[in-house]
Amino acid sequence: MMDYGAIPLKRLIEQFERMPGIGRKTAQRLAFYVLGLPVEEAKGIADAILDACEHIRKCSVCCNLTENELCVICGNPSRDRSQICVVEDAQDLLAIEKTREYKGVYHVLHGAISPLDGVGPEQLTVKELLARIQTGEVKEVILATNSDVEGETTAMYIAKLLSPLGLSVSRLAYGLPVGSDLQYADEVTLSRAIEGRRSML
Amino acid sequence: MMDYGAIPLKRLIEQFERMPGIGRKTAQRLAFYVLGLPVEEAKGIADAILDACEHIRKCSVCCNLTENELCVICGNPSRDRSQICVVEDAQDLLAIEKTREYKGVYHVLHGAISPLDGVGPEQLTVKELLARIQTGEVKEVILATNSDVEGETTAMYIAKLLSPLGLSVSRLAYGLPVGSDLQYADEVTLSRAIEGRRSML
Repeated sequence: MMDYGAIPLKRLIEQFERMPGIGRKTAQRLAFYVLGLPVEEAKGIADAILDACEHIRKCSVCCNLTENELCVICGNPSRDRSQICVVEDAQDLLAIEKTREYKGVYHVLHGAISPLDGVGPEQLTVKELLARIQTGEVKEVILATNSDVEGETTAMYIAKLLSPLGLSVSRLAYGLPVGSDLQYADEVTLSRAIEGRRSML
Repeated sequence: MMDYGAIPLKRLIEQFERMPGIGRKTAQRLAFYVLGLPVEEAKGIADAILDACEHIRKCSVCCNLTENELCVICGNPSRDRSQICVVEDAQDLLAIEKTREYKGVYHVLHGAISPLDGVGPEQLTVKELLARIQTGEVKEVILATNSDVEGETTAMYIAKLLSPLGLSVSRLAYGLPVGSDLQYADEVTLSRAIEGRRSML
């Protein structure tokens, strides 16, 4: 363990190091960057963190992050409220928004079922999703959880819950990434791509 | 430009994005990580930033970063004060400390001469270095600035300044990185390695 010679510096490096994808070297680089800033600018970073934590909350309808009662999507009257796309977190929502393809609304679960991590349906916003669907406006639910074990489990759990309600429930398609080379695809992806093949004629 | 739907979130992403080596996607990931933290922990990050900015200053001897009057190296009586290793910034100092080879003291310039960026010797701690050397205790100066144009210029400038003082002034050795493959070395490094070859007998 390096001796940085200054406790506040060490503390700052440790804080950065705890962030996802930030190793010791990057943490050190970021801490020195912050120290090299004019005090006002460094305070701007601290303020942005405090401000975000204090003012960001969950949308009262879809649980997306927002600073108002409704998120920017639920507050948009032109979105199709009969279609709900269920995602694990707000970042997944942003990824789908970027495609500019989807015109429905969302539901953000804030996680995925993972018994090993102690996350069950009660820790997610599944109850809120059911309550929304019971209003009767919803016709289709797209389960856009990740394609890992937790995401699959979550999708299957929700699909089962929804099955008595007579809705259209779908899952995102699996297959080869666009522009990818077939020979480099892993077997699971490739077998899913064959399984999900679509007629061209 | 994505619409994050919440101004504080956007501001936080922008703050992270301005940090060195952090792109849009990483900035987004970090911002969502911070938002997902319990409020107390997020405040801990903000506090660490403010605390570091308020309490870290330059060592009154070597200009290394410290929270006290003297940095941890200048305050250590067992370090050899006759040897000064001149580095561009505190991170370079840490890199040299990691080798556990060097027992002398340091001088941190806080930059390198770069006329295009408006950085001349006056913006660096060159004056402080000269004042230290004039106390007479110093016998050797090792110029450990980077091996890019700015670092070379700075080393040459300081070497020239020191030449009338009758000290031993040296520069770090150039050559092949240890464990590297000769065929992948760039020409400049390789020609420096040949130039600086050392007798083995």
